[in-house]
Amino acid sequence: MTKYQQVLDEATAALATRSYYSRYPESPSPKIYGETAAADGQAAYQAYLGKPFAALASQPTDGSVVGSEVSPYGPVLGVTYPRLDLDAGLAAAKAAIPAWRDAGARVRAAVCVEIIERINARSFELANAVMHTSGQPFVMSFQAGGPNAQDRALEAVIAGLVEMERVPETAIWEKPGRDAPLRMRKDYKVVPRGVAMVVGCNTFPTWNGYPGLFASLVCGNAVVVKPHPHAVLPLAITAAIAREVLAEEGFDPALVQIAAEGDGEGLAKTLAERPEIAIIDYTGGPTFGAWLEQHGAASGQTVYTEKAGVNTIVVDSTDDLKGALANLAFSFSLYTGQMCTTPQNVYVQATVPTNEGELSFDEFADRLGAAVARFTGDDARAVELLGATVNPQVRANAASHAQIAEQAGGRVVLASREVDHPAYPDAVCRAPGLVAVDAAAEAVYTKEWFGPVAFLIKTDSTEQSLERLVTTVREHGAMTASVYSTDEGVLEEAREAAAAAGVALSENLTGGVFVNQTAAFSDFHGTGANPAANAAYTDAAFVANRFRIITSRRHI
Amino acid sequence: MTKYQQVLDEATAALATRSYYSRYPESPSPKIYGETAAADGQAAYQAYLGKPFAALASQPTDGSVVGSEVSPYGPVLGVTYPRLDLDAGLAAAKAAIPAWRDAGARVRAAVCVEIIERINARSFELANAVMHTSGQPFVMSFQAGGPNAQDRALEAVIAGLVEMERVPETAIWEKPGRDAPLRMRKDYKVVPRGVAMVVGCNTFPTWNGYPGLFASLVCGNAVVVKPHPHAVLPLAITAAIAREVLAEEGFDPALVQIAAEGDGEGLAKTLAERPEIAIIDYTGGPTFGAWLEQHGAASGQTVYTEKAGVNTIVVDSTDDLKGALANLAFSFSLYTGQMCTTPQNVYVQATVPTNEGELSFDEFADRLGAAVARFTGDDARAVELLGATVNPQVRANAASHAQIAEQAGGRVVLASREVDHPAYPDAVCRAPGLVAVDAAAEAVYTKEWFGPVAFLIKTDSTEQSLERLVTTVREHGAMTASVYSTDEGVLEEAREAAAAAGVALSENLTGGVFVNQTAAFSDFHGTGANPAANAAYTDAAFVANRFRIITSRRHI
Repeated sequence: MTKYQQVLDEATAALATRSYYSRYPESPSPKIYGETAAADGQAAYQAYLGKPFAALASQPTDGSVVGSEVSPYGPVLGVTYPRLDLDAGLAAAKAAIPAWRDAGARVRAAVCVEIIERINARSFELANAVMHTSGQPFVMSFQAGGPNAQDRALEAVIAGLVEMERVPETAIWEKPGRDAPLRMRKDYKVVPRGVAMVVGCNTFPTWNGYPGLFASLVCGNAVVVKPHPHAVLPLAITAAIAREVLAEEGFDPALVQIAAEGDGEGLAKTLAERPEIAIIDYTGGPTFGAWLEQHGAASGQTVYTEKAGVNTIVVDSTDDLKGALANLAFSFSLYTGQMCTTPQNVYVQATVPTNEGELSFDEFADRLGAAVARFTGDDARAVELLGATVNPQVRANAASHAQIAEQAGGRVVLASREVDHPAYPDAVCRAPGLVAVDAAAEAVYTKEWFGPVAFLIKTDSTEQSLERLVTTVREHGAMTASVYSTDEGVLEEAREAAAAAGVALSENLTGGVFVNQTAAFSDFHGTGANPAANAAYTDAAFVANRFRIITSRRHI
Repeated sequence: MTKYQQVLDEATAALATRSYYSRYPESPSPKIYGETAAADGQAAYQAYLGKPFAALASQPTDGSVVGSEVSPYGPVLGVTYPRLDLDAGLAAAKAAIPAWRDAGARVRAAVCVEIIERINARSFELANAVMHTSGQPFVMSFQAGGPNAQDRALEAVIAGLVEMERVPETAIWEKPGRDAPLRMRKDYKVVPRGVAMVVGCNTFPTWNGYPGLFASLVCGNAVVVKPHPHAVLPLAITAAIAREVLAEEGFDPALVQIAAEGDGEGLAKTLAERPEIAIIDYTGGPTFGAWLEQHGAASGQTVYTEKAGVNTIVVDSTDDLKGALANLAFSFSLYTGQMCTTPQNVYVQATVPTNEGELSFDEFADRLGAAVARFTGDDARAVELLGATVNPQVRANAASHAQIAEQAGGRVVLASREVDHPAYPDAVCRAPGLVAVDAAAEAVYTKEWFGPVAFLIKTDSTEQSLERLVTTVREHGAMTASVYSTDEGVLEEAREAAAAAGVALSENLTGGVFVNQTAAFSDFHGTGANPAANAAYTDAAFVANRFRIITSRRHI
């Protein structure tokens, strides 16, 4: 496959610089995606509803179906998926590997790009599917679930390609000898690990699923995707596209399969226990994630996990109070705090110097509460940012601010407001709430409160705030951290604290970049250096273990 | 440190091509190492005997000492080592990391090269130390324990450097916006994982110890080396050199420490359970190796293990029977089969076409037995190849050929001969023995018989031989495999089998290259693709998890 060789080179160069690079435009503008793209995508989505998902009919199945998706916006999707026959499916996946392996890294990378291009062309369809499984607002579903996820997919392909191409296909080895030199030809073959499993999550089925899927695939592995039972459709569409492209290019579509399950079936565990599974990518809760890691070590599997954490912000001082508050309000509100990157713990020293004068801890808390309240005050506009709550735990968290405050001896700065969705009356939408507590109230803020719960935590000093950042992130993990300070010395200390804690740091975000967003090809998502995740999208460690090199050598 | 920048560039280029590269000459010639080098090295070795090892006196210790080394050649070494105070030692290691981290990858790599250069200058001293701890013959102790190990060390440094330098220190990120672009500066910091432990083995303390030691060190980690209680001295000398160089370059010598222990103290387990330990490199038995892997997964440690396997040869046909037999005889004999790479299982089809006519299985077996017997027939010459047996298990295996043959319904082709060492009467030296069995006698040949035990295994066909190779290596692991065939089709099938089994393949070795030897910068040692080892010296996967990247980003 000679197509896309230039794309591969260009993207490889971009990844090496880590400067801005995006292949897939994130604007849902009709000028980019076509005048009818939005309507076509919605129609394509609606055509799936209430029916068997036909494009996976070629997967081996026992004939039964599963399907329990209900949109967080209310409607039942009613899509059913064939249940994968694990014996036949895994056997087919294994049998598909040798031809895919022998095609070579560059052909595989090009086929992966073709898959991503076709996914991109169906971004609106996928946006609807992501929206009605995750509860993300529409524009976010389009951007994060579409082009941003596609850029992450391409990044994983390139990272894998770079790592595979570090080893030449052949070398002539000539060792000087007393009489004649010893001469050998050595062939180096990239050999995949086997069948990879990707365990999808409910909130970001594509964005969190694509890096592992494409990293494993480009390295020659077959992939079985086990979606969250409530977010199957986006990954089923993805797999159907991948299977279509693979078949067109002469490869076995069994290289990508969907293993859908009903609620509570525990299929990820069943699959993890299969000897065919060599690689696991997981996004989800920490308990099962830890089980996967330990079981994987006992079974020779390589396991990449993204679990949970307490994302942290340190407020020392600011020369743009309004910008800082608006930026933070957006970060808390986006998708109702249901991002693994949403900040939760805001450490604020007793007095905060700002361009509007010195604020006490409580004044700063109230200003932030007011900013969030203003930002989410209009229901019709707020829902386009908040989306809908994804599950009962999030809804329970949203209702617990008063109880938390009482337990922690703190204060509800802002209660989580119930928001009515004008178009979807059954959606449960909530604006973020804030609780102010003292740094001593560790019991409440050293665990993850997924959803619209954030803490303003009063510390004696920024020094204590940074100490708290290091301690809590080391112990409980974090995907993100940020700091506000006008003092270069404090910023330097914050960078040192972030390095010690093993978390990426954003500094003084007051404009259009948010702590919960990372850009493919430039920002790493996670670090692998704290308990929140043992890997990062996408560094060398994320790809280097997905293949091995097998040498054959002979004299010439 | 500007020294060695050219060396780093040159070695980086060499690693990318995987053609022949060696910085450290393996010939112990006085023309290379100096007229007095051999005598000086021996004198330096002898000066250690019967005394406390003074060069580690600066390590934190509780004042007690350990030391139980007895040369496999007979003499008691009588060297005592300070026992590392673990609390103080690990605290010192952690405290040493930030300055080492902040020095940057290239400075660390140059300091590592300086350490290796000084180790090289003391190759004769180390050769004596390796010889009298491992039982290797002298020339092998010099080569494998000295320059070859040093080349592996340099390779690990370069592999780590390449991986760290894939990420730029800084990027300017400029995302096009509706009005003005969003511009950020992003700094990427290589952050080590923490304190690494290297668990040394008795047979190759330096060769198997250096890759993990230098890979962790160059990536910014501190390293605690836990040598085998019977092979402390080579790693103690190494650590003393490293500490000396680190101190000279302004770094804390606590970056490299030795944790010596007495027999049966279980110090590796104690250290593995310390929260400071983030990386473990282990060479040793499979039971403890598996424990380390699982415990590591539960503790967030990255664990690299080399355990055990059944190295395999497939004999189909040859057009150089004498060359093949001589090559195999050497491979079995070198260091009495006590290499993790020594072949054990030789699958031979019922009739073997050769340039000396067609041989039956038994004829081939007898020819090989005769070749080994001839090769090891003269005691004085044999010991220079065999060395001494390292432990009671090897000696027990050496004595068990008759029993194995009886159990397996096979035939002793060649008994393991007792060899007298002319210089060391207390050394237990044994020549290899061979047992012929049928392929059905799996029970005996699917486990590792460390030492002078090899099997000739009769198969119906080369097809069955290759099937056996794949099955046994997948289940029991292997560090090496080789094939003899004059048929290009068979060789292609053997390559396919090696890829399926996940083991490197040597083809038709009849000259000066042996299956049990791998060359740094060109051959991978192990693959990580079968149960014998979960990693390879040195691929990207061996280094990529030894550091993380921590980003800090801000608007500009």
